[in-house]
Formats: sequence, structure tokens, C-alpha cells
Amino acid sequence: MNTETSVNLTVDRATCVALDVADPLAGFRDRFALPDGVVYLDGNSLGALPKTTAAQVERVITEEWGTGLIRSWNDAGWFAKPAVLGDRIAPIIGAAPGEVVLGDSTSASLFQAAVAAVRLRPGRRVLISERGNFPTDLYMLEAVQELLGDDEPLERRLIDDDGPTLDDELDDDVAVVVLTHVDYRTGRMRDLAEVTRQVQAAGAVMLWDLCHSVGAVPVDLNGAGADFAIGCTYKYLNGGPGSPSFIWVAGRHQAAARPALTGWHGHARPFDFELGYAPADGITRFRVGTPQLLSMSALEASLDIWDEVDIELVREKSLRLTELFISLVDTRLAPRGVEVATPRQSARRGSQVSLRVENGYAIMQALIERGVIGDFRAPDLMRFGFTPLYVSHTDVWDAVAALEEILATEAWREPRFARRGAVT
Amino acid sequence: MNTETSVNLTVDRATCVALDVADPLAGFRDRFALPDGVVYLDGNSLGALPKTTAAQVERVITEEWGTGLIRSWNDAGWFAKPAVLGDRIAPIIGAAPGEVVLGDSTSASLFQAAVAAVRLRPGRRVLISERGNFPTDLYMLEAVQELLGDDEPLERRLIDDDGPTLDDELDDDVAVVVLTHVDYRTGRMRDLAEVTRQVQAAGAVMLWDLCHSVGAVPVDLNGAGADFAIGCTYKYLNGGPGSPSFIWVAGRHQAAARPALTGWHGHARPFDFELGYAPADGITRFRVGTPQLLSMSALEASLDIWDEVDIELVREKSLRLTELFISLVDTRLAPRGVEVATPRQSARRGSQVSLRVENGYAIMQALIERGVIGDFRAPDLMRFGFTPLYVSHTDVWDAVAALEEILATEAWREPRFARRGAVT
Repeated sequence: MNTETSVNLTVDRATCVALDVADPLAGFRDRFALPDGVVYLDGNSLGALPKTTAAQVERVITEEWGTGLIRSWNDAGWFAKPAVLGDRIAPIIGAAPGEVVLGDSTSASLFQAAVAAVRLRPGRRVLISERGNFPTDLYMLEAVQELLGDDEPLERRLIDDDGPTLDDELDDDVAVVVLTHVDYRTGRMRDLAEVTRQVQAAGAVMLWDLCHSVGAVPVDLNGAGADFAIGCTYKYLNGGPGSPSFIWVAGRHQAAARPALTGWHGHARPFDFELGYAPADGITRFRVGTPQLLSMSALEASLDIWDEVDIELVREKSLRLTELFISLVDTRLAPRGVEVATPRQSARRGSQVSLRVENGYAIMQALIERGVIGDFRAPDLMRFGFTPLYVSHTDVWDAVAALEEILATEAWREPRFARRGAVT
Repeated sequence: MNTETSVNLTVDRATCVALDVADPLAGFRDRFALPDGVVYLDGNSLGALPKTTAAQVERVITEEWGTGLIRSWNDAGWFAKPAVLGDRIAPIIGAAPGEVVLGDSTSASLFQAAVAAVRLRPGRRVLISERGNFPTDLYMLEAVQELLGDDEPLERRLIDDDGPTLDDELDDDVAVVVLTHVDYRTGRMRDLAEVTRQVQAAGAVMLWDLCHSVGAVPVDLNGAGADFAIGCTYKYLNGGPGSPSFIWVAGRHQAAARPALTGWHGHARPFDFELGYAPADGITRFRVGTPQLLSMSALEASLDIWDEVDIELVREKSLRLTELFISLVDTRLAPRGVEVATPRQSARRGSQVSLRVENGYAIMQALIERGVIGDFRAPDLMRFGFTPLYVSHTDVWDAVAALEEILATEAWREPRFARRGAVT
């Protein structure tokens, strides 16, 4: 039934090498400083290092900070940077100039956007999210519930793949729906346009979490007529550990939107030092305090790469990689009890594949020791991210081969692979 | 009446050189990469660059991120870093280990701490702050008022040097008092212990903004029995542009404190990915989302310097520098209409001196062009920060000489010094 499967039954490593040679994105791999001997399949958690980042950050440190000192807030454009970099992220997510601004952590930006979204629907008392959301989204919604609840907290309803569905929960008391476009555990992708339409038809505001989709799949926020979105820049965008989040607000909402955190960088006249808050025009009002410039400057280096990337080519290669991985898992690992947890229908899959398996934690540790880096999410998911700018078809082959060998030899049983403490 | 004044009447540049030779902190100046020909008196806004920062950040980028990749969250201690660096800031502010954690921007941390403080006083409806606070504190308190107001917003009362006073406004309806220890415009310093005592005597909770005091003057939070504090690391601590803020919560409050922003890094079990928020023990619950690692790593380099600094020596030198500056201004600039806006009583002065003068903006621009960097705050204040780790007595002399020359020649009248746009 799936032609890919029958084709891939005949794939061998030489086929993968040939696919790499024909890969239109192959040239991008050399833009990243990947360590020798590593197959990096965790770019869905922390993207790889662009080769130009260290020099870019060093320049900002020594020239802009060291020599320019305080003058760089104006002369080096520091103050404007969150909006300038936002405008460079915009085309990757189908946003217009002036609709995206960088924030603090994703958690803080989710709060910032969610409060503004709820305030657009006064009188409505319900937030909908999903059990499968990255937990911090749910935790921050608890903060929203508590802080925006007047006499009583707002009500939170969680949908789930096993029910209840969005259809079950949407009614005219729902203010905001907060869903993740691509699920962090399974890589399952929602239909952004269709869900947006459904939520708006119920009179609610849609807030998308794009953490696992920006740079991974084409996103067309304005094409979908969406309302709000937030996302992360340290995964597929390769901005570096903890690089700033972003907030997108549709142009039509900006004048009415009232963000939660009314810091001076979002003020209409920040350097007049007025006693009262007055929101800046446009997306700027979503800024809070002084942005972390050095982390932003690292992101700037990776956006130099992204300026050259055709996201449609990224998607094509992403699907080739994930389909190849799934079919190799099916043929070589399924007999050993490994199950694909990610949707097989390409329209429902982001750029990662998760495998459900017993003893997944220890197996992943054994795999990492062999230089194939993915990660593990409790209770039973091994996650593999396929970042088309630097992951090759051969990487996919080698990852499956390593996994097969670990399962065949039961190498994961060695005591040093047993679970101990936190993993990110 | 002031012996300093009479002594300084006889000061000349050679005296300043001699004072520099005798300065026990003189050796620290060489730890900073200051540009040639610059007298940097704006370290109260953005601290100078330590010489080791660029290499430290480069190491984190190339080794920890580039080679360690996702593994560095555990192996390089990234996850623990906000608490580890918090513990290194603790001794500078009289805090104990486990009481300080790094946050996002100062604005966000003020919100985080203020909400927790208000929640410790249920039923009380008033926030007190001051007109002279850095405005973002007031703006963020507007957010607290609105979000924590149930039926009606909390009431905000502002004290002022021209009245009303804290005494006038404190009553048993006051939940929290938010004051800045050292005023960002005038450098006026409050008596931290005495104000804390007064606020607590009224049953309210005291939240200190230490942005202009941490690293500038000795602070003894636990000695004063204080409640909450937040501060900034990019001024006197030299963490770099936008380096993370910190939050201090007295140990005795931590178990009951409920911060506003309940992100996953403040969760008791962040890697169990639970559906519901449960606060971590201790100061960790004040964390929000993924911290901006590269900005933190720059701060780490500057804390290597701070580990060696005796803050009492910093204070002694700070007072020598500010007294020298004040007396030189009195003798050489007062006749030209320049007025000292900073308290002359040393116990009431932080580590900056502000001058009130007509045409201060243009005068400051002319001064900056001559390599003496201070800043200007509307409507009429020229600010000069004296950071004892890298500012010398000779710098003070040269700054006043340059200012005198600009005033004498009216060089500031040149059109290029006229005001245009924002200054930070």
C-alpha cells in the first residue's frame, strides 16, 4: 500500500550515499561544526553549531561590547535587534515584517502571548490545550488561569489523541486554544490551517506553539489566517543553547493586544522614562526587558544560513529522511520489538521520528556511546530528529545499523547504561 | 564643615596619579579590555568587558555546544548553571547559598518576585513604590496590579523625595513595598536595613531592586533580615549586554513563595514531564524556562573576577572616587552652572554621581566625543558611574578637565551634539 516501503526494501548504504550526492541541500552540511564520528539526530532538541557563530559572537563581545561599550545600544543596533531578527524569522513561518519579535524563554513568551490572547475574548472562561503539549506550556497556562481568573480561575480543558477531541471541547465559552503544531514526543503534526479555522469558527483565539516546526516544516501563519504563535530558535534554527524565543502576533490583532508583561522595552517611549506604561505600536509591545544580546548574536549567525534556505527543499528532504528511517526500522528493527510511534502519513509528520521500545533509556545511552545521538522521553520513547541542513541519508542508514547491532548484541544491558538522574 | 572638600582644594593631577599608585584595587584594571583613550564612566549602565570573557564564551560555543551538543545539558552542567552562578553572586549581596537564582530580564524577575511577595500577604490590597524607581519596575507593578487584582486592581501608591513619604503611605493594607536601593538617576542610596525594618513593622513584605547596588556597594540582605530582592548583572558585575538578572528570596520565605511564572525549569521534577505544575524546593521554583546559556557563560567569566574582590575595598575606593569628583565639580564646574544632584553624605550615595545642568544632553555628547563616556537622563541629568575595579582617580581628574574645557569653550553648541532619538 505504501510505495516507499517496497522501494526501500532494496535500499543499501550505497543507495544512501547516492541520495546524498543528489541532495540539493548537501552543501549546507559544511556550514555546521559537527564533531567527527557523530551522527547527530537531536537537532530537534538543540541544533548543531554553525561554523560562523563563534566568530560572530566574538566580534560582538570584543568590538561592540568591549570597544563600543554603552554606545552600541544605538550604534550597533542592539536596541532594535529583537525586531530585526524577528523580521528575519518571519519568512520561515509565513509571517509579515513587523509581526515577529524575540522574547525571553519560550515559557515566558507563551505566557506573554496567552494573556494577550485571552484578553481578546473577555467573558469567555475556558482555555483548551492538549495532554501532549510540551509540559511547560501547560504549566504556564496554569499561571494564566490563576492570574487572569477574577473570582474564580479560568477553566482548562485538555484534549488528547485518545479523546476528548477539539470538537468535543470547543464551545462558546472557550477563549483560547493552545496547541503544539508538531508534537515534541511523537513528531505528529497538526493541520495548522484546518485547526485554526475550526477554533476561529467557535469564536476562540488560536495560539500555536511552533517550537518543533519552525525550520522543520513549512509554516504559513498568515496563509492560515492564524492569530498568535510562539516558537523556539535553538532547535531547527540552530541559535544555540537557550537562544531567545519569538512571538508572532497577526497584524490585525496588534493594536488591541494587551500583553501580560509590560516592561520598558515594550513601552511606546522607553527613553522618556515616564511613570506610566503605554504600549508601543505593533509587535514591539510584546517585548519585556533588556534582551540577552550575546545569545541573540549567536542566533544572528545561524539566521545568515537560514536566509539562504528554501524551506520547501527542507521539507522534501525531511520527508525523504524520515521515510527512509521508518522503512529501515520496519524492516530491520520491528522484529526486535521496536515500534514506530510517529504517523506514517507524511502530512501528519514533522521532522522527527520516535520509536517506542522497552528499555529505551538504556538503548539510547548505548547508541549515544556509539556516536549516534538522539534522546529519550519517559516512559518509552526514543526520539530522532532529522534536520535536513546537516543530516544525510547515510546518517540515517548508520543510525539504524548501530541500533540494530545494539539490539542484536543486547549491548544496552551493560550497567553503565542504566538510568541515573535527569536527561534533557 | 566637610574635611574632604578642603583637602581636595589642593588636589592636582599628580595627586590623582599618586592615589592610583596606592590603590589596593589598581591591579583589577588590567583584567578589563578598555579601549585606549577612553575614560569609561558608564559602568553603572553597561559594565566593561573582562579580558577573559571572549575566550570563555568561545569555549562554551565550540566545546560545550559544538562538540558536547545536547549532552552538555548534563555533562557541562548547563541545567544547574542558574543556581550555581546564583550562589556565586550570593556573597556579594549578603545572601546564603541556595537563595539566589538567575532569571530572564530584570523586568521579568521583578514580576516573578513581586507576585510571590504579594501572595504572601493575602487580603492586603496596596503596593508601594516610588516615583524615582527605574520605570520598568513601575510598569511591571502595573502588570502585577492588573493580574493579581480580583474584583478590582490592586492599589499602587508612589512615594517621592518631595513627599509623600514611606511613613505617610505605610498602613495595614500594604502588601508589598518595592524600592530601589540606589536610585538610577541620582545615585541616592537608601538605608536598606532601616527601610526593611520599617516596612516589616507595618506587616508588609519588602522587595529590593539592587540593579544599581550589586557590585557597587556592600549589601547585606540577610543581615537586614530582608525578604525579596532582584538585580542586574550587566552593570557593576560586568556580565555583558543583557546578561541575566537574579532573584533572591530569603530562605524563610521559599517554601511558601508562589512565583507567577510557573515554567518547567522551576518544576520539582522537570524531566518527568508531568501534566501539572509542582514547584521545586527552594529558590529553584523561581526559574522559568530554558536559560540563555551563552549570555550566562559571559557572566561566568566576570564572576571569576568577582570571586577575588573584597566589596569593602570597592566601597572605600568608590567613596574616594565620588568624593573626589564631587569636590572637583564644586570647585571647577559649579561656577559654570553645574550642580551636584547626588547626596553629599557618603552613607546616602551609591557609586555614581549625577550632575544637573542645562543643555546636559549636548554637553554629554561633546564629552563622549572626547572619550569620556557617561550618559544623560532626561530632563537634565548627566550621569557618571564610578566602577572601582577599572576607574582610576586620574580618570576622575581627566573627566572633570574635559567637562570644564567643553563648558569653557561652549563646544557643546556644535550642531552635531543636538538631541536626536533614543539614548540608553
